[in-house]
Amino acid sequence: EDQDLLLAAAYVSDAQYNRNVPFETSPQAIRLYYFYNHWAMQAATYFFICVDLSLALFEEPALFPLPFLVTSIAEVLCLTAFFGRLVHFAKVTPQMVFWKDTKNICIMVTIVLTLVDLIVYGILEALNVYGIRWSRALRPVFLINFPESRQIRRAFRSIRNTLPDVLYVFLLFIFSVGTFSLMALKLFGDRGLKTVEGSPYFTNILDIAFELYVLVTTANSPDVMMPAYEFNWWYSLYFITYIIINTYIFMSVFLAVVYNNYRKHLKNEIRTLAYLKRRKMIEAFNILKVKVGTESVVKEAQWRRLVKVVAPDISSSHLELLLRILDEGQKGHVDKVNFLRLPDLLNIQVITINVKRHPLEAWMPRVYQSVFVWAYDVIILINAIFIALDEKNPFISYAEWLFLSLYIIEILLKLYTYEPRAYFGRKQFWNWFDTLIIIAALVATVANTTIQSARKYNSQQILDIVLILRILRLLRVIVSIQRFRVIVTTLINIGPTMLTFGGLVLVVYYVFAIIGMEAFHGRVHFFGPNSTSPDALTCGNSALRDSAFARGKYCRNNFNDLGSSLILLVELTVVNHFILLANGFALVTHQVAKLYFIGFHIVVVILIVNIFIAFILEAFFVAY
Amino acid sequence: EDQDLLLAAAYVSDAQYNRNVPFETSPQAIRLYYFYNHWAMQAATYFFICVDLSLALFEEPALFPLPFLVTSIAEVLCLTAFFGRLVHFAKVTPQMVFWKDTKNICIMVTIVLTLVDLIVYGILEALNVYGIRWSRALRPVFLINFPESRQIRRAFRSIRNTLPDVLYVFLLFIFSVGTFSLMALKLFGDRGLKTVEGSPYFTNILDIAFELYVLVTTANSPDVMMPAYEFNWWYSLYFITYIIINTYIFMSVFLAVVYNNYRKHLKNEIRTLAYLKRRKMIEAFNILKVKVGTESVVKEAQWRRLVKVVAPDISSSHLELLLRILDEGQKGHVDKVNFLRLPDLLNIQVITINVKRHPLEAWMPRVYQSVFVWAYDVIILINAIFIALDEKNPFISYAEWLFLSLYIIEILLKLYTYEPRAYFGRKQFWNWFDTLIIIAALVATVANTTIQSARKYNSQQILDIVLILRILRLLRVIVSIQRFRVIVTTLINIGPTMLTFGGLVLVVYYVFAIIGMEAFHGRVHFFGPNSTSPDALTCGNSALRDSAFARGKYCRNNFNDLGSSLILLVELTVVNHFILLANGFALVTHQVAKLYFIGFHIVVVILIVNIFIAFILEAFFVAY
Ligand code: NA
Repeated sequence: EDQDLLLAAAYVSDAQYNRNVPFETSPQAIRLYYFYNHWAMQAATYFFICVDLSLALFEEPALFPLPFLVTSIAEVLCLTAFFGRLVHFAKVTPQMVFWKDTKNICIMVTIVLTLVDLIVYGILEALNVYGIRWSRALRPVFLINFPESRQIRRAFRSIRNTLPDVLYVFLLFIFSVGTFSLMALKLFGDRGLKTVEGSPYFTNILDIAFELYVLVTTANSPDVMMPAYEFNWWYSLYFITYIIINTYIFMSVFLAVVYNNYRKHLKNEIRTLAYLKRRKMIEAFNILKVKVGTESVVKEAQWRRLVKVVAPDISSSHLELLLRILDEGQKGHVDKVNFLRLPDLLNIQVITINVKRHPLEAWMPRVYQSVFVWAYDVIILINAIFIALDEKNPFISYAEWLFLSLYIIEILLKLYTYEPRAYFGRKQFWNWFDTLIIIAALVATVANTTIQSARKYNSQQILDIVLILRILRLLRVIVSIQRFRVIVTTLINIGPTMLTFGGLVLVVYYVFAIIGMEAFHGRVHFFGPNSTSPDALTCGNSALRDSAFARGKYCRNNFNDLGSSLILLVELTVVNHFILLANGFALVTHQVAKLYFIGFHIVVVILIVNIFIAFILEAFFVAY
Repeated sequence: EDQDLLLAAAYVSDAQYNRNVPFETSPQAIRLYYFYNHWAMQAATYFFICVDLSLALFEEPALFPLPFLVTSIAEVLCLTAFFGRLVHFAKVTPQMVFWKDTKNICIMVTIVLTLVDLIVYGILEALNVYGIRWSRALRPVFLINFPESRQIRRAFRSIRNTLPDVLYVFLLFIFSVGTFSLMALKLFGDRGLKTVEGSPYFTNILDIAFELYVLVTTANSPDVMMPAYEFNWWYSLYFITYIIINTYIFMSVFLAVVYNNYRKHLKNEIRTLAYLKRRKMIEAFNILKVKVGTESVVKEAQWRRLVKVVAPDISSSHLELLLRILDEGQKGHVDKVNFLRLPDLLNIQVITINVKRHPLEAWMPRVYQSVFVWAYDVIILINAIFIALDEKNPFISYAEWLFLSLYIIEILLKLYTYEPRAYFGRKQFWNWFDTLIIIAALVATVANTTIQSARKYNSQQILDIVLILRILRLLRVIVSIQRFRVIVTTLINIGPTMLTFGGLVLVVYYVFAIIGMEAFHGRVHFFGPNSTSPDALTCGNSALRDSAFARGKYCRNNFNDLGSSLILLVELTVVNHFILLANGFALVTHQVAKLYFIGFHIVVVILIVNIFIAFILEAFFVAY
């Protein structure tokens, strides 16, 4: 009977956390399944994924160089861990299901490919032959394909489902760009116009198509139009038409199509999740049910034992509360309909609140309402001005302590009003926020005074963090203005999904960074901000002589290590100077390199950024 | 009884065209109301509005200069026309309603202000004193406030209703920019960093706030980050955080808020319109109704006379069709419920179609399906390649004629298949499109051959149009691919609303252009693309020496006439190089000028472009 309880609890737990892993129901498999879902095992998996991904920081081209032997041993260790996790999973799930699941096949293939790549690269390195560590671009496979990352997979599925519709709009868009390119070639090709740099203007159809594609990103506006516009104002109409059709209408249509599919897909996913959750709860119910009269029910004692297995840390008052909700008639058992509600109830946080009045409010309610609350907003404003002023003035640095004491007094008054346990309840986000900001400011001010008096300005980064913490206290203004709080609360509620989104972006960025590092590392050098070396003017590459890239001093934007690559990819996501950067890397390699940048633009800006916008739109529509 | 019919017809007509003008019901007032709604009167009003708005092309600073006397006489003429139209309206509508309507007051005040401005400016000009024609910025008032422009007013109302919600997000956004500015001042102010231009980096809080505001538009990315990033990669995190929060999240929240309000507002407007339409139809019904048994109805003869007054051009078969729909039981009268459906039915276009099979399809159906349709796509593709090739080759210019004959044969075959009247039905958009493109290409090719043989290359613009028409025939590809047609049809269906949108943009652009011309005209000069004058390097203004504006050769972007101003405003809408242009005009006037550019950004990019995107999103959601 204990086995039945464990099995039922596994189903309930799966329903609570939306896990959809079919598992064997033999006693041993169930115990293995509990072990598989243990938080320590999951944390270990994520730890090894992080280690595996961050290896790119230490491999050539490295931010912190380590010998190949060290990184390869670390990688083999990670692969072993992944393989172990997979074997564990194979013991839990039925054989047939395991081998039919592409996720598992993906992981195995990637492990094998990585090992092959490691061995080949090791041999080549031993023979002093140049090799490419191509398998590094496959590392995000591990992040995507483990059962724990079902959120990220859902996001990828959402993108995949969007593709057919986006594809047709994209083809029409490409057709439009092509037609406009042909027009531009015929209109401007024979005029002998010159660009600002003095090169011929719009004479090659491929260059024109690239320039016009980039105009959609707005990155070369208005430069691309200037020679024609200077020749005759009439030609500006061509570019304005192009911008209206391609930049505004087509980009909005992309957003519309992506958003529409996102919504449709989201609805389907939620429906499926609800269906699967219900099915698991019915299975759990069928295991535990007994007949009372004509009705199938779960007895109170059995139900209590189940909940204690599912949520071992539950308080007895919380357990009683749940029981009272699910057994309304106090009949000593839970019927089927109420049993199915258990996972949703378990996901709700319960807090007990005990409200007194603020001492000032009790003492003089009018003053509290009108003066006290506003007074603190004014104090914050004055504080902001003081921060902006020169802090070397001793009067100002003493004032710091005054502000801090005022804030601390306010929080202590609030702590007295509400009980500390209620004030710091799990969902009392704004109280936590307020207190943390003040504590941070206190720590920062103390640290600042200590460091300043010790006159040891050696850790710049700690000083910077201290500084930021002190300024962050201005965020208290948000706490005191109701409308601001609504907006920020909405943003914070979408935080968890935003994290999923971060995972998705990380995967795409990582793959593009690895490819970019293999293709462009060492081609562009940065010589420090104050370098007087003549090579600094060409970023150490003569192909960049007189290029806009070198003239604008963009040498720091390169693919020479993972950190720089990721920052460069962020710049490309923002899109501005997209063409300048793409041209720079095309000059130091080959014109084909532009395809890398266009590909990045399509994947990140047209697909992912639009999904991000769609996602914020949806969150706000639900909240408002 | 004729009077009753006219009155009822006026109500029905108002319901059909969604007019909401209360009018007097005296026989004379009804006749005046018919005259007021006559298309010629409406066309005349729009004509005078166009003349009034385009006067800015001829007034100093002028694109085509005319003496002040001529433009002022034209303006007085326009004002007289507007006043006449207003008087006409006053005779139609009840006194009380007329004087309570702010639209009418607005028009009258604007007429008076314009006259005052004209007189003052005329006197100043006679005395050779410099004056400002400030009333020119008020001209769009006429476009907005006449009853015909209810669509544009609705768009403005939609924006106004959005403002309170947008305001709070905007305040929070400004707060965020302010906090980040303070951080930047503290982090970078004392480092002694220099920008690429060699000026001090991030030392003044106002400059920082402006740069960071512009970073939201992405226009100064990544330049704004480079000095800090070169100093220490660690600082790039500050900018990436800023971009994520302010560029991505806040800008999406703006879109969300604008979109949400737009949707809400649209729903209310549609509900109100439907209610008003219904009320007018009930009034018309009450005028015409007679008792038949217990039921109130409109007799068939009366109904026929009504429809002939409302739609004088209706064909008798169309009339019979309408009657058969509304009098289902053929009882010889129309009941109330059916009577209310009349305006919606009148708005539906009716066509008769008579389909034969395509001769090729009848002859060999398989070949038609698989070969014939695709063959023409291949022909268009080959045609595109031929257009791209050098047209001086005689073989290629002969090939033109071959392609054209192939296209014409296809259209003739189609005309044979469907009857011409059905093929060119009013709603057969794609047939019209196809035929017009081919006719245009035919005209263009003939014109091209004539001009080339005559060797008179004197009209560049006609040649350019000919060229574009020849290339436009590639758009036939859209006709033959079903999925493309769906997308383009959706875009075309939102065309009329897009025109409203165009009106809205025109109003805002016009006001900003007039203000910009008054503030900045003559400050920046363009010396022609090949000028060797030393002044050309500073755009004729020594304040621009060594500025990025002059170095990048942006002199053509100025406010020296209405055309240049409008093109510059389009460039500002696209946002790229926003900061460079704003800085240029701040240099030649005063730093305060930046407020003009920030104001333009808030109104056009944050409000209007977002409404445009919301509007395309909504149209696509409805269509998909
Ligand atoms: Na840009």
